[in-house]
Amino acid sequence: MIFSTPKKIRFHHCDPAGIVFYPQFFYLLHEAQEDFLMHLGFAEHQMIALGMGVPIVDLKTEFLGMCRNGDDINIHLSLSKVGNSSIGMTYTITGDDGKVRLRANGVVVYSAVPQGKPMRIPDDLRHALAPYLQNKQQAP
Amino acid sequence: MIFSTPKKIRFHHCDPAGIVFYPQFFYLLHEAQEDFLMHLGFAEHQMIALGMGVPIVDLKTEFLGMCRNGDDINIHLSLSKVGNSSIGMTYTITGDDGKVRLRANGVVVYSAVPQGKPMRIPDDLRHALAPYLQNKQQAP
Amino acid sequence: MIFSTPKKIRFHHCDPAGIVFYPQFFYLLHEAQEDFLMHLGFAEHQMIALGMGVPIVDLKTEFLGMCRNGDDINIHLSLSKVGNSSIGMTYTITGDDGKVRLRANGVVVYSAVPQGKPMRIPDDLRHALAPYLQNKQQAP
Amino acid sequence: MIFSTPKKIRFHHCDPAGIVFYPQFFYLLHEAQEDFLMHLGFAEHQMIALGMGVPIVDLKTEFLGMCRNGDDINIHLSLSKVGNSSIGMTYTITGDDGKVRLRANGVVVYSAVPQGKPMRIPDDLRHALAPYLQNKQQAP
Repeated sequence: MIFSTPKKIRFHHCDPAGIVFYPQFFYLLHEAQEDFLMHLGFAEHQMIALGMGVPIVDLKTEFLGMCRNGDDINIHLSLSKVGNSSIGMTYTITGDDGKVRLRANGVVVYSAVPQGKPMRIPDDLRHALAPYLQNKQQAP
Repeated sequence: MIFSTPKKIRFHHCDPAGIVFYPQFFYLLHEAQEDFLMHLGFAEHQMIALGMGVPIVDLKTEFLGMCRNGDDINIHLSLSKVGNSSIGMTYTITGDDGKVRLRANGVVVYSAVPQGKPMRIPDDLRHALAPYLQNKQQAP
Repeated sequence: MIFSTPKKIRFHHCDPAGIVFYPQFFYLLHEAQEDFLMHLGFAEHQMIALGMGVPIVDLKTEFLGMCRNGDDINIHLSLSKVGNSSIGMTYTITGDDGKVRLRANGVVVYSAVPQGKPMRIPDDLRHALAPYLQNKQQAP
Repeated sequence: MIFSTPKKIRFHHCDPAGIVFYPQFFYLLHEAQEDFLMHLGFAEHQMIALGMGVPIVDLKTEFLGMCRNGDDINIHLSLSKVGNSSIGMTYTITGDDGKVRLRANGVVVYSAVPQGKPMRIPDDLRHALAPYLQNKQQAP
């Protein structure tokens, strides 16, 4: 399964060249992560209220096409790994022409925050994540 | 040579966990790029006024340690490549304890903006970049 | 008539105190303005593509209650004035308890951008704005 | 006395019209407030670590001139009021031509955060603020 969430490129995402300023893509990816976790029933703001979070440790991004003010985009999210504490997240942004604008692979770690101590992903979250895992690298 | 620029972690960089929200690091890296280009005499805002820019096409980031509100950091920038149009940029963020908080490798492309057409890096910019190139992958 | 648009408080809107960092409210108000103009058929990104815009010249804001990560809010927008070039915009943010979190009054000026030269609001936009005017200060 | 702090308009402050997107001015004003409190010896990040903060309750802003990518500006800060808990802050942004680009009056409240309970400004902070008060409205 792949989770998809529609977003609109806003004026505030764009730079003097009229295109998305690249750090703004990461706000959009984080919104997609929030939407995904909320869809799974593990809203990030509730997680944080309980002293947990999913800080990022690694991120690889390819910027493949420009996005402009007013564009409708889709962000697609699937999982490349669900480890003991870490979760590999694969993001693709497509325009409404279906063409890929950005691909990213992030690794987040389920952690006690703000100290950042990695914790084992609890079973209920693990089960909710499982359908989105693309390549069966789930820890036993 | 390595270009270094000091920055302060601001309130607005930080998230509800009290640490830098990761996309904010990229604002800081972009500020370092602006400082670097200005130091070389090729201020980005002047480049843009002339219809040129350096959009990013690839970015790999390792988040190695937390930064907190009020922290003094240093951003170090050197070059891994100066190609025909592309420039490989290597960033390291250190805290005032000298420990590395973030490493990133970005590839930007000297381009006509906003269309994004790659252009050959002009010789004067190329010469200004050369001392910061770490591994002699400069195009002939 | 009052235009209303629902928004969600996102992680990136919030500060180390866990509440919306106040400048982020203005991103949300601007998104509401974008939603409003698009609803009227005068999408801001199309306006900008034609060399026009609505830069702000005056803004008064009362911050009346906190908004937190994950909150669902509504932004309500009506008009206090439609002058020759200027538009008075009245914003209210309510939480899902109906309580007011923020009130703002902004004045924007229909202008040629980026020079910022005020221009008379064209009749079709003026007619689209009229139903949202609360106090009949429309210019003749 | 007036506190002044120089800032540079960065690429990320600017919008598709090539000028500062107005909410970004409030980031700059907040940075000036951080610089001011640090200059007084009451760094905001230390205040927050002690459970205190200065949330804003009222803000009036006049946008008097455009700022562009690469501009050098100065932010001038003085105080219009030091009450029991509230502090009136007057900001002026000038360009390097000395012309005023923005004037703002904000009221912040010294508070226990995140609950937002107003607290009496402690005497040491009050004494540090006093020289910047322009009109002798200090509470006895």
